[in-house]
Amino acid sequence: MTQTPRIDCLQYANWSEKVFRQMRQGGVHGVHVTIAYHENFREMVLNIEQWNRWFEQYPDLIFMGRTGDDVRLAQQTNRTAIFFGFQNPSPIEDDFGLIEICHTLGARFMQLTYNNQSLLATGCYEDDDTGVTRFGKQAIAEMNRVGLVIDMSHSAERSTLEAIDLSARPIAITHANPHWWHAALRNKSDEVLKALTRSGGMLGFSLYPHHLKDGTSCNVESFCTMIAEAAERYGVEHLGLGSDLCQDQPDSIVTWMRNGRWSRATDFGEGTASAPGFPQQPDWFRDNRDFGNISDGLVQAGFSPEEVAAIMGGNWLCFYDEAFTAQGT
Amino acid sequence: MTQTPRIDCLQYANWSEKVFRQMRQGGVHGVHVTIAYHENFREMVLNIEQWNRWFEQYPDLIFMGRTGDDVRLAQQTNRTAIFFGFQNPSPIEDDFGLIEICHTLGARFMQLTYNNQSLLATGCYEDDDTGVTRFGKQAIAEMNRVGLVIDMSHSAERSTLEAIDLSARPIAITHANPHWWHAALRNKSDEVLKALTRSGGMLGFSLYPHHLKDGTSCNVESFCTMIAEAAERYGVEHLGLGSDLCQDQPDSIVTWMRNGRWSRATDFGEGTASAPGFPQQPDWFRDNRDFGNISDGLVQAGFSPEEVAAIMGGNWLCFYDEAFTAQGT
Repeated sequence: MTQTPRIDCLQYANWSEKVFRQMRQGGVHGVHVTIAYHENFREMVLNIEQWNRWFEQYPDLIFMGRTGDDVRLAQQTNRTAIFFGFQNPSPIEDDFGLIEICHTLGARFMQLTYNNQSLLATGCYEDDDTGVTRFGKQAIAEMNRVGLVIDMSHSAERSTLEAIDLSARPIAITHANPHWWHAALRNKSDEVLKALTRSGGMLGFSLYPHHLKDGTSCNVESFCTMIAEAAERYGVEHLGLGSDLCQDQPDSIVTWMRNGRWSRATDFGEGTASAPGFPQQPDWFRDNRDFGNISDGLVQAGFSPEEVAAIMGGNWLCFYDEAFTAQGT
Repeated sequence: MTQTPRIDCLQYANWSEKVFRQMRQGGVHGVHVTIAYHENFREMVLNIEQWNRWFEQYPDLIFMGRTGDDVRLAQQTNRTAIFFGFQNPSPIEDDFGLIEICHTLGARFMQLTYNNQSLLATGCYEDDDTGVTRFGKQAIAEMNRVGLVIDMSHSAERSTLEAIDLSARPIAITHANPHWWHAALRNKSDEVLKALTRSGGMLGFSLYPHHLKDGTSCNVESFCTMIAEAAERYGVEHLGLGSDLCQDQPDSIVTWMRNGRWSRATDFGEGTASAPGFPQQPDWFRDNRDFGNISDGLVQAGFSPEEVAAIMGGNWLCFYDEAFTAQGT
């Protein structure tokens, strides 16, 4: 196996045979898919049950990924390995022991928070960031032990810096961009990105329009020039993609993502009352078939073929190889 | 690896370091432990969480078993592989998809019923046995698919015969004795045992006093002579042990096993109002250290060394090798 795989470290599509076929058409060998936003443990298990039906239904297209070697197996068999993750710690409820249970069931990433305060840390939409909680410190140690990656994509600044510091293993920000490129609340400060990458962590660049400079109108040159700047600041080996692709989802889903069961009034998150729905994707990244536009853009931005391959998936594969197994194994 | 392992295919002790050390002292390499009687899915998961703590606490004594090879690993490393099972289908609730989830979490045996009617079949204490239900037929096919063994130890006659017939893979009666030896409600008819073993299934002989001729006073000669008779009737290759050892349990546990949450009045099961507690074990099988008394008794009953080894664990190991993986793998 000499070719480097393509990995997208965050998608939440309205899954269908069409989407799985587009993964194949785009040559995507590994995808980290969100299986929980606000779900409790039992509800999250129902989502795995649905994935088990898809794995049974489309064995020629997708299968469940557990280790980096499953990405290699996907390359060898022309399929896509699907890795589970949570955007909120709600599936572990208030129960330390569920961390290992979730890992056994296939979870490989868990955000310590979505946008709000969680039992573990503070989300980026809260007014005050009190850092990692008492339960959060225990959870980080347990996630380190079993091989469940700490993801701080939606977390607030102090919480993120503390998680990087507390974690004995490198963590990830699977889907966000640098704040210095586009000053969105969800994008990350230079300080966070330096601390993340210095500790061996990974950043997945987001293609969600609210995270892009000029939103839907952002062009691929701007996106790839930003990546070149990030490579200079943080080192190319810490960079990958986490597109945040929410393909084919109805707008009711983004409302649910933002509101779950916690808000009586509608929270618009990164949207507004006048534009509450999903934003339109830029025309150079509409779905899984468009990853070639990004690799072409990276070449144009001056990256070598090896660097392009690393950003398109090689770096995530190295990270997966180290991050998903129990500590010391 | 030339030595045959010792396997006990049913225990429900009040687990402790003492019990795990006695498994080692008795040279027991594999134990099927009950982790659910009346628990729903979430409650069963709490029991796995407790087992995960024991695996972490006593790594030199026990570890979680998933395949027959884990019994071999136990032999090589002088430990005991622990295999999970349910005595009732309550952990799958009304949800087909939980069968695969439970298998992923480590479950390897599931009784279609405990003593009562379940959603899948009829238990041996019901007045009428209506056989395998509509959900039960779906569940059998799914258990066959994923490699979760159908156990009919507590099920009624017709349900058991139907399950044997419906299952595409051999099933098990992990802990019961022949009705022709001791006419207890829980012991199995000759017809059931013939159908079970002709289809490649396994019988684990129980050492629970209510299943023994003369109860606590049963002697090892009587027990082993019964096994010799069973070997003539059914073939030695289908026979093993499933002691039903409930060591160190307080009597409140047998009350809970019998009553769960289903009965306001106290059900005494195999006990009586005047003797509602756990019966006393016979003095030749008090705990895991006493398996040598049984292998000695089997020699006395005329079995060859190879046959003794097969009954003490070799037969269960062959069954484990075939039964625990997904169909067609």
